[in-house]
Amino acid sequence: MIKIALAQFDFAVGSVHKNIELSRQLIAEATDNGADLVFFPELSITGYPPEDLLLRSGFLEAVDDAIKQLAVETTGIDVIIGHPGSYSGKRYNCLSWLSAGKIRTTYQKQRLPNYLVFDEHRYFQEGDKSEVIEINGHKLGLLICEDSWAPDVVTACVDAGAELLLVANASPYARGKFPHRVADMGDRCRENKCPMIYLNTTGGQDELVFDGRSLLIDASGELIASGPLCEDALLYCQLDQSGLQADWPIRELPELAEIYHVLVTGLRDYVYKNGFSEVVLGLSGGIDSALTLVLSADALGADNVHTLMMPSRHTSQLSLDLAIEQADMLGIDHQTISIEPSFTAFLDSLEPAFTGKPADITEENIQARCRGVIVMAMSNKFGWLPVSTGNKSELAVGYSTIYGDMAGGFAPIKDCAKTLVFELCEYRNSINPAIPQAVIDRPPSAELAPDQKDEDSLPPYSVLDAILEQYVELDHSVNDIVAQGFDPATVERVASMVLINEYKRRQAAPGVRITSRAFGRDRRYPITSGWRDKL
Amino acid sequence: MIKIALAQFDFAVGSVHKNIELSRQLIAEATDNGADLVFFPELSITGYPPEDLLLRSGFLEAVDDAIKQLAVETTGIDVIIGHPGSYSGKRYNCLSWLSAGKIRTTYQKQRLPNYLVFDEHRYFQEGDKSEVIEINGHKLGLLICEDSWAPDVVTACVDAGAELLLVANASPYARGKFPHRVADMGDRCRENKCPMIYLNTTGGQDELVFDGRSLLIDASGELIASGPLCEDALLYCQLDQSGLQADWPIRELPELAEIYHVLVTGLRDYVYKNGFSEVVLGLSGGIDSALTLVLSADALGADNVHTLMMPSRHTSQLSLDLAIEQADMLGIDHQTISIEPSFTAFLDSLEPAFTGKPADITEENIQARCRGVIVMAMSNKFGWLPVSTGNKSELAVGYSTIYGDMAGGFAPIKDCAKTLVFELCEYRNSINPAIPQAVIDRPPSAELAPDQKDEDSLPPYSVLDAILEQYVELDHSVNDIVAQGFDPATVERVASMVLINEYKRRQAAPGVRITSRAFGRDRRYPITSGWRDKL
Repeated sequence: MIKIALAQFDFAVGSVHKNIELSRQLIAEATDNGADLVFFPELSITGYPPEDLLLRSGFLEAVDDAIKQLAVETTGIDVIIGHPGSYSGKRYNCLSWLSAGKIRTTYQKQRLPNYLVFDEHRYFQEGDKSEVIEINGHKLGLLICEDSWAPDVVTACVDAGAELLLVANASPYARGKFPHRVADMGDRCRENKCPMIYLNTTGGQDELVFDGRSLLIDASGELIASGPLCEDALLYCQLDQSGLQADWPIRELPELAEIYHVLVTGLRDYVYKNGFSEVVLGLSGGIDSALTLVLSADALGADNVHTLMMPSRHTSQLSLDLAIEQADMLGIDHQTISIEPSFTAFLDSLEPAFTGKPADITEENIQARCRGVIVMAMSNKFGWLPVSTGNKSELAVGYSTIYGDMAGGFAPIKDCAKTLVFELCEYRNSINPAIPQAVIDRPPSAELAPDQKDEDSLPPYSVLDAILEQYVELDHSVNDIVAQGFDPATVERVASMVLINEYKRRQAAPGVRITSRAFGRDRRYPITSGWRDKL
Repeated sequence: MIKIALAQFDFAVGSVHKNIELSRQLIAEATDNGADLVFFPELSITGYPPEDLLLRSGFLEAVDDAIKQLAVETTGIDVIIGHPGSYSGKRYNCLSWLSAGKIRTTYQKQRLPNYLVFDEHRYFQEGDKSEVIEINGHKLGLLICEDSWAPDVVTACVDAGAELLLVANASPYARGKFPHRVADMGDRCRENKCPMIYLNTTGGQDELVFDGRSLLIDASGELIASGPLCEDALLYCQLDQSGLQADWPIRELPELAEIYHVLVTGLRDYVYKNGFSEVVLGLSGGIDSALTLVLSADALGADNVHTLMMPSRHTSQLSLDLAIEQADMLGIDHQTISIEPSFTAFLDSLEPAFTGKPADITEENIQARCRGVIVMAMSNKFGWLPVSTGNKSELAVGYSTIYGDMAGGFAPIKDCAKTLVFELCEYRNSINPAIPQAVIDRPPSAELAPDQKDEDSLPPYSVLDAILEQYVELDHSVNDIVAQGFDPATVERVASMVLINEYKRRQAAPGVRITSRAFGRDRRYPITSGWRDKL
C-alpha cells in the first residue's frame, strides 16, 4: 500500500523561496497525515510559466540550490517535485524524486508543447526515456503534462513497468477543456490498463488561470475523483491491491459558474500577486463595467473596490442612476468626476489646429481618454490597480479607444464575448441581486455622441459574436463562414476589422484567458500585414 | 556556366498577391538579363514572419494557389522560391524549384529557430533530408537560414553532391550580427570546400528590419561580394569552372551609419506598410524627440512630419527655443499647444478626490497624459501616425508614463540606449546640421516638476546603460555584474526597476529592433513574478 498526497496548490511564478517554503509546509502536513509520498505539479519550484526567467543563470542557480536543500531535508517521506534542470549544458523540464536526503532520480519531459500559449521549445530540450520509480513495492511511472496526451509516451512508461501513472501538470483553463482532459486521460488509462493520478496546479498567472481539478482515474478509464476548481488542496489517495482509491468526490459545475469562478480567480490573483489590494474602475451604467464591478467585488471584497462615474454631455440620466444603483447594491465607494472641464479644455486648446475640420471620432476618443487620465490619476494617487472593462467582441473589432477605455493594468473580461457578458450577468444575478436588471436590458452604447448605440456601428452582437468565434477562435476563413449562411458583406467587414485592429490589441492590458484562443500569447499576429480575408 | 539572379527584395508579410506580382516582375527582368535562375529569399511568398497567419487555412490555400500559378508561368528560366507548404497534413518551411511549367522539387527546412524573436516550432515540422538540384550541369544544394548555421546539415548537403550552396534567408538585423554571419558562413564554405550564395531579404516588418547584405563566399571561405544594406536589388552572379563570380563589391559601413540606416528603414516601412504617409510627434527640446524627429524626416521627408511643442508651467524657455530651432533647421511643420488648460482642468476636477493628499508623481503623469491625448487627437483628426520618442534605457527602468509619452503607434528608438541616442545624434550631425548642439549638451530632463533632472532619479546614463546591457541584453545576474566593480546597491536597484516595470513594456508601442535582445518578442517575461535578483 502507498498513500500519496497531491499538492494541488498555487506555486507563484518566480517566487522560488516562497515555493520552497510552501513545499516544506505541505511535506510536513502530509507526513503528519501518514502519507508515503507528496506529489507536486509541473515546475512547482518556479511556478508556471516562468518564461524568459529560465534564460537567467542566476535564476536557475537559485532553483538548483533550492532543490538540493529540499532533498537534504527530505527524510521519512518521499517527494516528487517539478523544476527546470540543466544537464550537460541542456535545459529540461524535470520531475525529481527526493528520498532519504537525496535526489534519487530525475525524469525529463519528453513532449514539449509549442502552440497556443506554450513556448516550451524555446526553453527546453526533449527527454528521451521513461522513468519508473519504486516506493513501498509500487512502481510509479513519471510523466509531465503534454507527455500524457501522447499515447506512445504513456505506453512506453507502462511497458517500463509502471503500475500507476503520476502526471504532473500545469494545464491552464479554457472553456470546454475539462471534459477533453477527462476523456483523453481516461483513454490513456484504458489503453494501458493502468490507473493515473493527474495533478494540476492552481491560481492566476497573468492571462492564465490554472484550474486545478486534479483527476484520479482507474485502470478501466473511469474517473473516480476530481479536485476542486481553482482551489488549493492537499488531496490524499492510496494505491493497493484493489486499485486507486480516494474519499473525495467527482465535482461537477455548470459552465457559467465555472467561467465566473475562473474570472474571479484570475483577477484576484493578478491583483494580489502584483502587490495591490484595491482596484478602481470606471462605472458607466453599461453592462461591461457592471460585470467587471461585481467580479471585482467578489474577488477582493466590496470595500476594496472603487468606482468612478465620469459623465460628459452625452451621458444619460439613466446611466448616472444605474451606476449609483449598482454601487449601492454592492456597497461600493462611488465617486462622480465629470470629464466636461477637461474635455472642454482639450477642445479649446485644439480649436486653432482643428479649424475648418468637422467633428468626428477624434472628439469621441478625447472623451474616452479624459476618463483614462482620471482613472489613472486615481490609481497613481491612491495605489489602486486600474481595471479596464472591455470585452472580447469590442477588442476584436477595435470598438474601443486606445489609452481611453482600454487604459488599465488588467482587463478581467477581455476574453468574454459580449453575448457571454450578458449570460454571466444573468448567472451572477441568479445567486443574489448584483446588477440592476435595467443595465442588462438597455441597448449597449458608448455614449460618446448623441443617441449613440453600438449597433449603429456594429452588427447585432449575436451575429458579430458568432462570426468572431469562427474567425478568431477557430481560424475559419471568410469563405467557410459565409458558406454557413452569414451575410457575405458582414463577414468580410468583420474579418477586416479584426485584421486592421491588431495594433490596438498589442497595447491592450492583459486579462483572464477563458477560451482556447484569447488575444494575447495565444494569438500572435503581425500588426503590419497585407493579408485581407475576402471571398 | 550558370548565371543566377538574387532577388534581395522586401516581400511584405501577408501580401501574397503583391509578392507574386513582384516575383513575376523580377523573373521577367532576370530573363531579359540572360539569367538561368532566379533565387528568392525564405518564405518570400508570404513575407517573414507571417506568424499566426500560418494557422489560417484560407491563407495557406492562397499561398498554394499562388505557387502553382507561378510554376505554370515559369518557362525559359528556373526559379527557386520560398513558401510555407503542407504535406501529409504537416506544415514545412519550404523552398521550391520551379522549372518548365512545374514544381520540380520542394526542400523542407531542417533546423527551426525557436529562440529570441523566432517561433518556428510553433508553425513548422522539421524536414529530414538534403536537396540537391541540377541546372545547366551544376549541382545546387538548397538550404534555408538556420540550416546554414548547423555544420552537420551543410556537410550532408555537400555530401549529397552540392557544388554550390544556395541559402535562402530572412535574417533580421541586430547590432554586431553581420560579422558573425560572414565568419560563420565562411566557416561552412571552408569546412566543405564549397562556395555559397547567402541571400537575405530586406525591409521593416513590425519590430524587425531585414538588412539584406546578401553574401557571396568562395570555396575557401572568403567573402567576395556583399549586397547593399536594407536596399532592394536584383543581384547577378555566375558559377563556372573558375568558381563563383560577381561584379558587385564588398560593402562596409561604420556601425553608427549602419544603425541609423536600419532605424530609418524600420520607421519608413512601418509607416508606409500600415497605410500612413505622415507622422506626428511631441518635440520637447530634449534629445530623444530630437533624434526621433530627424529619423522621421529622413524616413518620410520633412513635409510629412509634424511636431507639437506642448508646454506646461515646468517647460523652460530653452526647451521652447530649441524645439523651434530644430523644426526650423529641418523645415518641419511645428505647432505649439499648451497643456496648461487641460492640466489645470484635471487638477480642478480631481481636487475634491485628492483633498489632503500631497502632490506626487500623479501630477507629473497627468501632464504626460495630457500630451498623449493631444498627440492622439492630432493623429485622429489628420490621419498622422503618432510616433513616440522613448529610448531603451527609460523603457527598461520604467522612467516613462504609460498612456503619456509612451502613447503612439511606433517607437523608433525604443531599442536604443540613451548613450547610443547621444552617439546617433553626433553621427547624424556629422552629415549635416540636424540637431542643435545645445539639445545634445543640456542635461536630460522630463520637465514634469520644477528643476527636474533625469539623474536626480536615475544613475548617470553611462552607468545605467552599462548595467542594463549586462542585465537585459546578456542576462547576467546581479552577482555577476557587481563582480565587475559596479556599485552593489545601484545594480540591485536597476535590476529591480527592470523587473517591476514589465507591465509598462507589455503595453508599449512596437519599435525598431537593433540589438539581439529588444523589448518585444525577443524578451518574454511574466508581468506577475516573485523573482527579485539580489546579491
